[in-house]
Amino acid sequence: MSTIVSIDVRLFHIPLAEVLVDAKHGDHHIFELITATVHLEDGSSGTGYTYTGGKGGHAIAAMISHDLTPFLLGQSATDVEGLYDAMQWHVHYVARGGIASFAISAVDIALWDLRGKRSGQALWQMAGGAAQSCKAYCGGIDLGFPLPKLLDSIQSYLDRGFNGVKIKIGQPSLAEDIARIKAVRDLIGPDVTFMVDANYSMTVEEAITAAKAFAAYDITWFEEPIIPDNYQGYAKISAATGMPLAMGENLHTIHEFEQAFAQSNLSFIQPDASNCGGITGFLQVAALAEQAGVPICSHGMQELHVSLVSGQKNAGWIEVHSFPIEHYTKRPLVVENHMALAPDTAGIGVTFDWQKLEAADLLTR
Amino acid sequence: MSTIVSIDVRLFHIPLAEVLVDAKHGDHHIFELITATVHLEDGSSGTGYTYTGGKGGHAIAAMISHDLTPFLLGQSATDVEGLYDAMQWHVHYVARGGIASFAISAVDIALWDLRGKRSGQALWQMAGGAAQSCKAYCGGIDLGFPLPKLLDSIQSYLDRGFNGVKIKIGQPSLAEDIARIKAVRDLIGPDVTFMVDANYSMTVEEAITAAKAFAAYDITWFEEPIIPDNYQGYAKISAATGMPLAMGENLHTIHEFEQAFAQSNLSFIQPDASNCGGITGFLQVAALAEQAGVPICSHGMQELHVSLVSGQKNAGWIEVHSFPIEHYTKRPLVVENHMALAPDTAGIGVTFDWQKLEAADLLTR
Ligand SMILES: [Mg+2]
Ligand SMILES: [Mg+2]
Repeated sequence: MSTIVSIDVRLFHIPLAEVLVDAKHGDHHIFELITATVHLEDGSSGTGYTYTGGKGGHAIAAMISHDLTPFLLGQSATDVEGLYDAMQWHVHYVARGGIASFAISAVDIALWDLRGKRSGQALWQMAGGAAQSCKAYCGGIDLGFPLPKLLDSIQSYLDRGFNGVKIKIGQPSLAEDIARIKAVRDLIGPDVTFMVDANYSMTVEEAITAAKAFAAYDITWFEEPIIPDNYQGYAKISAATGMPLAMGENLHTIHEFEQAFAQSNLSFIQPDASNCGGITGFLQVAALAEQAGVPICSHGMQELHVSLVSGQKNAGWIEVHSFPIEHYTKRPLVVENHMALAPDTAGIGVTFDWQKLEAADLLTR
Repeated sequence: MSTIVSIDVRLFHIPLAEVLVDAKHGDHHIFELITATVHLEDGSSGTGYTYTGGKGGHAIAAMISHDLTPFLLGQSATDVEGLYDAMQWHVHYVARGGIASFAISAVDIALWDLRGKRSGQALWQMAGGAAQSCKAYCGGIDLGFPLPKLLDSIQSYLDRGFNGVKIKIGQPSLAEDIARIKAVRDLIGPDVTFMVDANYSMTVEEAITAAKAFAAYDITWFEEPIIPDNYQGYAKISAATGMPLAMGENLHTIHEFEQAFAQSNLSFIQPDASNCGGITGFLQVAALAEQAGVPICSHGMQELHVSLVSGQKNAGWIEVHSFPIEHYTKRPLVVENHMALAPDTAGIGVTFDWQKLEAADLLTR
């Protein structure tokens, strides 16, 4: 009945409306979407996915096709957590993060889609059921935007009903970053939530100087000031400045999150189910976050994270990311009274518009 | 002149003479060898490589072909360290270890092959030049061998001129492990160096109990008693038992090695240039090891590591691994007076026998 009989893997290159730049990843012209559709013996199917900033998609697809699929065929899809552990061990020697985390994430999300369809439950219920909506903010990849354009984009977030915004920092001088932060705060007024994201472009010392300068502008969190690998560096910045810090989008294993919780004194955690082990991996991080008393937020793929974060008792904000995966689904993110609403559909609640994806992909060829 | 004009990537499945088993990776029927040959405008070429226990090879090849090659074409091959850093950042979002570390390793080794051919230097010279030979031990993937066969394999190592041996542990009971350790020590006598490797199959508590029991048999190191991610767990085992500990084959970034040196109180470090960033990555680890006063050893691909370890002032042992990559090269490992001798050829000193590789690969189809 629930035996896995085939897995379809597809890779799409999706053009961005304009070239987007952050401090450490260069120019983004496209993003990659990798989908994995798991078919069971009973005719049912579930689709999961992951995404990248433009590199690694072929490797992710190759690992799903050549390593995970042969391992999963013939197994029952019902013990999702058991399959998750088994997949991690199956590829362990070439894993412990990196491409394997993305590949396992896509498959795990497909298995949760099947689980929800089987049980009739929506993802926000399966993920804890604490609520069906959560706070949300728009995060721009806007480091390359001149100031007027930056402010236009911030205004567009407010016009779309959001009351939280985040900008990239990492201009050639700290004075320029501060000028942009001041201009944004002046535009949004005192009541809109405001975060900044350095994409680990700073040293610990630079981040301490920056955090002290940012404090005047009521910054809710300072995201990835330094490389994610320097766990204790985060604690140093926190101790020296009192600035709330956030990271998580670059942590790919539960052990990396354990180290961050133990060593980094983060005020917010931002896992991404597309690269931390799918829904199983995300919920493991959520459990650690609850223990640590740290609000759980998210990075990217808002159409899925809205359900995962809403379901948590200690929910923080979802990021509404500049990679618009949601626009290629049947239900782009719904926002009401500044809150993002999780879908009620059984399964993960993300259904791709395959024709739209194919058409977009064609534009990149 | 030194502009990169093309990169050929090849993936070989190489059958093992028999199925090999360790505590956490299941049965090994084959290993994968992934080669990357970098061609320059002047007609010269260099070949690097990486390997796996049977999974991930397609993903590694895909990353080299689709992500690293387009990035490298048209660049000069001479600034190897600069290209290494640039490759790491190019794929950073899907990297920080995992498949990307293997892919970058293969390309980096090819760039060092070119560097050596250009300068006329052998790898042991480029890698520090401290010596042209180093200590070596044979490490079997022998957890599944019945005791008589285990002892036969140990005797065969001694017959081949080695005076160091390592066995896998992780039998159903500690008593069985101890019986095998005792039998091996009885066979080899007091003068042969003897290590054990648990492939992280134990908890901290189990490892402490085991280490105390092993002490009677003069064990030079206890390798990977616990998962590599639990850096502080290693220090706990060390503090509780005084047993020398070793790991490194599963650490893939310089930051992971930094954490191990800072937190784990290791007595030996065992990087593998095939998965820690090639020769550039290995030499970065070697520099940390020298600072820490920890002898630098290696995991796998003995035909390359013989040069890298020999070149170091604080050289430990190379592992002569059960994946016989060396048998598919023009110069299998040379051992004289128990010491492994590094080749004098300009470049990395590893030249593949492509016909032999192709013939072996055909057997797996
Ligand atoms: Mg970010
Ligand atoms: Mg080992």
